[in-house]
Formats: sequence, C-alpha cells, structure tokens
Amino acid sequence: MSDPTEANEPKKERGLSNLAVRLLTAAVAIPALLWMLFLAPAWVFSCFGVVAAAAGAVELAGMTLGGERLLSGWLVLATMAVTAVVVFTPSAEALLTLMVGLFVTGPLVILLRPAPLEKAGLRMGWLIAGPLYVGGAIGAIATLHHLERGGTWVVLAMALAWGSDTGGYFAGRAFGKHKLYELISPKKTIEGAIGGLAAVVAFGLVIGSQWLPGVPLWHVVVLSLLAGAVGQAGDLCVSVVKRSTGVKDSGFLIPGHGGLLDRIDALMFTAAVTLLYTHWALRLPATVPHLF
Amino acid sequence: MSDPTEANEPKKERGLSNLAVRLLTAAVAIPALLWMLFLAPAWVFSCFGVVAAAAGAVELAGMTLGGERLLSGWLVLATMAVTAVVVFTPSAEALLTLMVGLFVTGPLVILLRPAPLEKAGLRMGWLIAGPLYVGGAIGAIATLHHLERGGTWVVLAMALAWGSDTGGYFAGRAFGKHKLYELISPKKTIEGAIGGLAAVVAFGLVIGSQWLPGVPLWHVVVLSLLAGAVGQAGDLCVSVVKRSTGVKDSGFLIPGHGGLLDRIDALMFTAAVTLLYTHWALRLPATVPHLF
Repeated sequence: MSDPTEANEPKKERGLSNLAVRLLTAAVAIPALLWMLFLAPAWVFSCFGVVAAAAGAVELAGMTLGGERLLSGWLVLATMAVTAVVVFTPSAEALLTLMVGLFVTGPLVILLRPAPLEKAGLRMGWLIAGPLYVGGAIGAIATLHHLERGGTWVVLAMALAWGSDTGGYFAGRAFGKHKLYELISPKKTIEGAIGGLAAVVAFGLVIGSQWLPGVPLWHVVVLSLLAGAVGQAGDLCVSVVKRSTGVKDSGFLIPGHGGLLDRIDALMFTAAVTLLYTHWALRLPATVPHLF
Repeated sequence: MSDPTEANEPKKERGLSNLAVRLLTAAVAIPALLWMLFLAPAWVFSCFGVVAAAAGAVELAGMTLGGERLLSGWLVLATMAVTAVVVFTPSAEALLTLMVGLFVTGPLVILLRPAPLEKAGLRMGWLIAGPLYVGGAIGAIATLHHLERGGTWVVLAMALAWGSDTGGYFAGRAFGKHKLYELISPKKTIEGAIGGLAAVVAFGLVIGSQWLPGVPLWHVVVLSLLAGAVGQAGDLCVSVVKRSTGVKDSGFLIPGHGGLLDRIDALMFTAAVTLLYTHWALRLPATVPHLF
C-alpha cells in the first residue's frame, strides 16, 4: 500500500511534501471552520453543510456509481436536497415528501442508464441510500449547530470522532496486540479501540465540563461512549464500501488529507448519535436558521 | 422462460391449476381488501400495511441480501419501523429520527456479516434503501387511506397501477410494434404504454367523477397521466433489480400470483405519486388513525 496514489502525484510535482500540504490545508481550514461555528451568522454553517454534502456525494458516486455522469449528477442533487431540507425546513411534510421522492426518483433515473445491468442493483440501492447517508449525516452535523451552544456541540461531535481515531492510534501503537477486525481494517487492534474510547470520554469530560453548562456530566460520559463506539464502527463502514467496490481513497478533495468522506466517516456517525442523544435523552430544543 | 419455477411446483402437487389458484386467491383477497378499505376501523388497514411491509421486505432481502438471516431480519424490522412511523406517527421528530437511525444502523449491521466482501457494498446500500423503498411505498399506500374518502383514493392508486398494466397488455397485443425498453422488459411496446395511459385516464375519470366529488376532473386527468407513467416505469424498476441480481420472481407469497413486490411494483409508485399530488396539488388533509 506504499505506492503513490493518483491523488498524491500532482502534489509531488508542485514540490511540496505531503506533510507540508497537510499543515497548510489545516492552517486554512481550521480557522475558517471555527469562524463558521462560532462567529458567522447561523445560516453560513448550514449553507456550508449543503456544499459539503455535494462534495461527499461526488465521492460516494465515484465509489458506488462508477462515476456515471447522469446518475452521479442526480445523486449530488438529491443529497443536497436532503441536507437542505434537514437543515432549513425539517417539517413533517417536507421530510415525508423527501422520503417518498427519494425512492420514486432514484429507481427512475436508473432506467435512463441501466448499463451495465449487473451493476444496476448496486447503483439503484445507492441512488436511494446515498442521499440519506451522506445528506442525512451532514444534515445531522449542521443540525447540531442549531442547538444552543451549537458550535460547541459540533466540536464535541468532532472530538468524539477524531479523538477516538487519535487515541486509538497511540494506544494501538503502545499496547496493540489483538486484531479488532482484520478483514476490513487490518491495522486496528482491540487495545486501540479501548484507548480510543478512553480518549473520547476524556475529551467529552473536558468539553462538557468547560463549555456545556447545564448538561449533567454523566450524560456526557454516556454520550461519549455511545458515539465513540458507533464512530469507530462508522469508520470501518466506509472501508467496507471501499473494499467491496475496489476503490482505495474516497476522493482527493482535501489537499494532503485524502477524500472528504475518508475524513468525516466517523464524524458522520458521532454527529448522528450526538443529535439523537441531544433530542431524545437531553430534550434540547433546536432553532432552524432563516435564510431569507 | 417457460420452465416451471420453484414457486409453481408445490401448487401442481396439490392438483390445482395455476388459474384456479389465482381465482381462489382473488376470491378471498378482494373482499378482505374491500372490507379493510371501506368498512373496518381505520387502524386495521394501517396495521395490514405494516404486515405487508414485512412481507415485501422478506422478498427484497431475497433479491438483494442473498437471504442472509441477520441482515434480512434487520431489513424486515427496519422496513416495518418505517411503515409504522409513516402511518402512525408521521411527526417531524419521528421522521428525522428514522432517517438518521436508518443510515446509522444499516452500515453497522453489515459489520456483523461482511462476507462475501464483494457483495457488502450492494448489501449496505439496500440495508439503507430497502426500508425507505418498501416501507415508504407501503406507508404511502396506507397514508392515502388517511384522507377523507381514503378507501377510494387507495382504489384509485390501484386502478392507476393495474389499469395501466391491463390496458397496456391489450393495447400491446392489438397494436404493439415498437419495443418500449427491450433490455429490461422485452415484451413491452410503446403502443402498449400509450394504451395503458389511455386506460388509466379512463379509470381515473370514472373513479373521480363518481366517487371523489370536490376534486376537479382536470386534476384527476393530470394525476392519472403522471401516476400512470411513473407506475409503468416503476414496474420496470423491480425488473431491473431482479435481472441485475439474477432473481426471477420476487417471491411466492400470493398463491398463483407470484411475489408481493411483483404484484405491487407499479402500485408502490402510483401510490407515492398520488400521495404527493393529494398533498401538494390538492392540499387535502390526512387524519392519522389512533391505535390506542
């Protein structure tokens, strides 16, 4: 797996090492993200979510639709529609229309591009599932931002996703012995997974105690464990799709960081769990931003 | 395609011709259906919808999950959950929870049964898409029943689905020359499709003028053409999945009539279009039945 991927080659030509590109990208992206989360008007992050959903859909189309243009274009539009509805007009009638519209239009589009027929079943499934998966997950991230202290909730979901990755990496290197799930992700170990969970609980406690007053800390611990575990599993899920369809990187959207979906695969799941937890366990109200 | 399918063989052993089985089944099913649609308490048809959704999910699992037990079981439960939420508690929070729950749990279940890995991408897609497709479509049929004169609306959606089939069959036999979509359905002709549309408009006008007072007839014509066309396409969609996955019949649930999905493939789409039309174009209110 050490041969250079296509995504890496253009960067080498520009003469920048991968690490430098990563650092440069982070130096631009992190302040921009913090500005959107904490300083900008609420609709800015929501609109960013719709754009990110489009980018994620392009990558998913590459993995599941063989990049076929018409199908991919439809997947991108449907994914943006899901995120936009979830973020801006999450009414019962809009959501139901979306659900019905998704399963009616997805199969119809396949009739326009049925070849190769042996792939049509896979493609029809993902034309329906993809908008729900990418659009719904990014919609969940953006909906967390609608909560009071929304920026902090998004940061918490990110900490639960990447904290798990990072804690897992170091714990795995230090103590890793027993393989977690060799078929899908040969490097992951059980010790790493436990280290990852320890890290998310620590991150959760810091963020919860400092920046989420009013949320009992035992709730933060339960949420961190739940979201951390589901996030680790979510990380494996994108790997399953990639291995199953023979794609190596989900894309090369973020310079030096690979694809967007590669980056946010765990976040998609931690954000979903965090959103469900804030709604059903904590009963926190969300305020939908007005665009116009 | 004239060799007997597995589904036909047990019937022959019982010594009944296929036609006799079909007629007997219809003689039981049609009165039962009419009773549920027009005479029984509202929740009976809604509950029937949830049960039918489970049966449809079993068939879809056979087509897309290779019948794998754990995955199929999860698909059936998730599909029933979608229909139940759409039918009994279509609130914004329930629908959003459903959407988020679907894309989180589907991929997680795949991690428990990833083999064969080359099928995992297809299966993960359908674990998310299937509940939306079968559960949402049957939910749409059951939701039509929530409208004032709900029984008549369901009969209209059925007439638009099966009228198109029947009209298309006779028009195709009489005038059929030009193939409609040879790759997927070699027997269908353009003349048949036009005849099918003529038949649904005729059926729509009869039902609309006699039993749906207050709905302008031009709306009935527009709805009939829209739903008729989408229904014909929906008919082709199940064929695409079957041909793509190498399955011939979706199931053998209805004696003499093949699988449930085979029977209702067009209805799933005409009901969805009819529901969206009654909501967005006619603005008809729906009343959710109370179970308890």
